[in-house]
Parts: sequence; structure tokens; C-alpha cells
Amino acid sequence: MDLRKYKHEAEYSYTLGMAPTLELIQNQPQCIDTVYVHPNYTPKDEKYNIFEVCQKAGLRCEVNKKVFDRLSMKGNVFVLGAFYKYENPVSDKHPHIVLVNPSDSGNLGTIIRTAVGFGFKDLVIIRPGVDLYDPKSIRSSMGALFHIRFSHFDSFEEYMEQFPQHQIYTFMLKGKHYLHDIHEKPNGPFSLVFGNEATGLPDRFLDYGESVLIKHSGEIDSLNLSIAFGIAAHTFSQHQ
Amino acid sequence: MDLRKYKHEAEYSYTLGMAPTLELIQNQPQCIDTVYVHPNYTPKDEKYNIFEVCQKAGLRCEVNKKVFDRLSMKGNVFVLGAFYKYENPVSDKHPHIVLVNPSDSGNLGTIIRTAVGFGFKDLVIIRPGVDLYDPKSIRSSMGALFHIRFSHFDSFEEYMEQFPQHQIYTFMLKGKHYLHDIHEKPNGPFSLVFGNEATGLPDRFLDYGESVLIKHSGEIDSLNLSIAFGIAAHTFSQHQ
Repeated sequence: MDLRKYKHEAEYSYTLGMAPTLELIQNQPQCIDTVYVHPNYTPKDEKYNIFEVCQKAGLRCEVNKKVFDRLSMKGNVFVLGAFYKYENPVSDKHPHIVLVNPSDSGNLGTIIRTAVGFGFKDLVIIRPGVDLYDPKSIRSSMGALFHIRFSHFDSFEEYMEQFPQHQIYTFMLKGKHYLHDIHEKPNGPFSLVFGNEATGLPDRFLDYGESVLIKHSGEIDSLNLSIAFGIAAHTFSQHQ
Repeated sequence: MDLRKYKHEAEYSYTLGMAPTLELIQNQPQCIDTVYVHPNYTPKDEKYNIFEVCQKAGLRCEVNKKVFDRLSMKGNVFVLGAFYKYENPVSDKHPHIVLVNPSDSGNLGTIIRTAVGFGFKDLVIIRPGVDLYDPKSIRSSMGALFHIRFSHFDSFEEYMEQFPQHQIYTFMLKGKHYLHDIHEKPNGPFSLVFGNEATGLPDRFLDYGESVLIKHSGEIDSLNLSIAFGIAAHTFSQHQ
């Protein structure tokens, strides 16, 4: 593998730092090519020495300064896991998180980490959207990406056709129901649907399933996407 | 005012961009020195032309490329509001958000915006902590900073002494009560207390008031601070 700065078209991506690399090793070892270690690496934690971890997992582990230099890392990154992208499509038995045109890899990572925290393991992205495999997304998910299933669709309508059983909840500023008024447990699998950071969901989403509003004061335009997601995920996790 | 790159010690700070500058003008006009406008500025919005807004508010407004160059703005910033720091201490009648040693200005800004969204207008920071007036904090609050009261303390104990009436809720991974089990409305003013992003609250906070845990799966170490805050603020806003 000739590791270069990440590109969307590439067949591989990489984790930056110890924590996401450990998550990669623990959850998706089959797709790992090589774990690179910077010569300045020193184990911070008695439990996890990257050389021992790789040896136990039967993974190739290489001390290689050039890789870090080539990817122009800004300090603090001493471990890097290079892996081939893999498929792990969402399940029709489980609740889904659906992000329509997400545009910020930091938000995406935080959302994935929060989703895993509340037991949601199935993520759908409606294109165009930020790249799940972008090392920035992986890093801000702190490796939680490797715990989830994910699928991409070109339109929400196409997604609904494939998962007709899923009860749809669209989170919108024009939502007809307040989140805190939703007390009934969804009857079967469901989808929590969120729009783009800047523009939210288009009005036509008002006609898909139940539209939900997280009530907030008029002093702010809207909640941050990852905050709105966190509140919704926490609420619905009590329903599972 | 000789506007230079922001320093913690400076008597002034500045807003970057139209949205936070409008919030500054609408909420704290008395502390504004000058609103600077980049020569490439063009109004995006019929409602808000910065020159008209300043004229109506009786504020000095200056087209000045040098200021933007000197602060080495990276594109996209065409409006900048220079203002003197002001005091606006928290009220003993209202609920407080208390952040113990917050270290990330992006998180701080998101927390302030979320707090305002859920009606919390009083923020306490226990030092050391990231600077509220850092233009990055202001920017990520989207100007919500100008809606709140705030105070700083050197220790949490000192804070409690000054506000003995406030019922304390500490959010901790070792918290004794689950957030979703807290159904009783706090009896009077209260404080929602959160620790540092990386280290959380020290164990001694278990003995202050009620300690609260937002239940999540063991697959993640913890929730992101601003997400945990958003969930708590949403829950307690229904109690107000």
C-alpha cells in the first residue's frame, strides 16, 4: 500500500492516533493493511503497547517516520492504522440514523460516537455528504466508526423504498410535534432523520412520517446539528 | 483602539463575521468601539446591510482592509466588531451553567449557544478555563455570548459559598443518579455542573449536591462535553 494523503477515491484510509487505531484493531482487524508507528512513539498506557497489540492480533506493524512526514501530521500523532475500505450495510431489523447531506466531518464523527453511545449502530448517509472515511471523520468519532454499519443512498426516497418498515421521524424547525411530547415507543424499527448543518431538511420531509421539533427559544436560529442529534438519540434510546 | 490579534490580557476583543457582529450590536451596543467592514463586503441579506445597521444604532463603521489583513483572516470574514470587554455577572435568581476548567473554545461556544436555546442565561467558569472572549469562542457561540451573564471563580468551593441557595447537579461518569430518573423539578435555582473535556469532574464533586450520569453504552468512553451538556440542558429546560 502506497499511503498518500487521503483522497475520497482511494481504496484505503487511515486512523490517526492511538485511540481510533485501537478501535480499528478491535473491531475491523480483517481490513487492516499495516499499522505505522512513529519513531518517537512511547506507550502512554500500560495496557496498550501498540507493538504488543499488533503482535497479538497478527498484524503488520512498522516503525516508519516517512509515512508521518508524507501525510504532514501536526505533532501528537504517533500511531496510524492504514486499512482498506469495507462494506458493512445497515440492517433492516434495527433503528437507523439518517443524515441527509451532512457537510462537516467533525459533526459526523461526533454524531457517530454519540450514536454508538446510545446503542444506534446503523447509519445512512444521503448523498452528497461528507466522507465517512475521511481521517477527520474517523478521528472525531474516536474510532466509533468501526462499531457501526453504514449505507449510502442517492436520495431519501430511494432509501425509504428499500426500508418500507421503518417508521420515519424527521427533525425539522417546522416539525409538527415537540420531541418531549413523543412518549410512545415506536412500534418496530424506526429512522431518525436529520438535514444538513446549514439548511436543515427541505419542506417535503414534513410529509414523510412524523416531523419533530426540539423546542428552543427564538434567541438562537437553531441548535447545532450534533447537539440536536444527541438530544434525539438520548430520548429515543430510552424507547429501545 | 489599535486592534491587534486577540490576546487574553487585552481590554478588547472582536466578533468575526456578520452573524455574531449583529448579535453584538443588538445586545451589547454600549461596549462597541468600531465596526470594521472589508472593501469586498456585499450585503447578502436585504434585511441586514451592515452600514445601515450601524447608522441606525449610532455606531462608528469603517471600511478598512488593513485591520482584516493584520488579523490574518482567512477569507469569508468581511465584518468585524471591535468591542471593549464588559462585566455582566450571573444572577442569584436564575439557574446556572457551571463549567469547571473547560479547555476547548469550540465546545464553549456551542455550549453557550445551546444554553441560550434552552433558556439558560447564566454561565460560571471555574478557572483555569478557556477564554470566553476568545474570538473563536464568540464565533462558535454564533454571538449567543452577548445574550448571557457570566462570572469567573478560582474554585468551585468559592462559587458554592457565594450561591448557597443553588441546588447542585454534577454531571459525572460516576454519577449516582441516571438523568432520565430525575423527574422532580428542582425546588428553586439550580446549577448544572460539568467538568473538563478530557478529565471530567474530580471525585470530590460526588459529595456536592446530586451527581448525575447520562446513561450510555460501554462502547464509548464518554459523551462529548457539548453533547452531554445539550442533553442535560434539554432535560432541565422542561423543568423550568
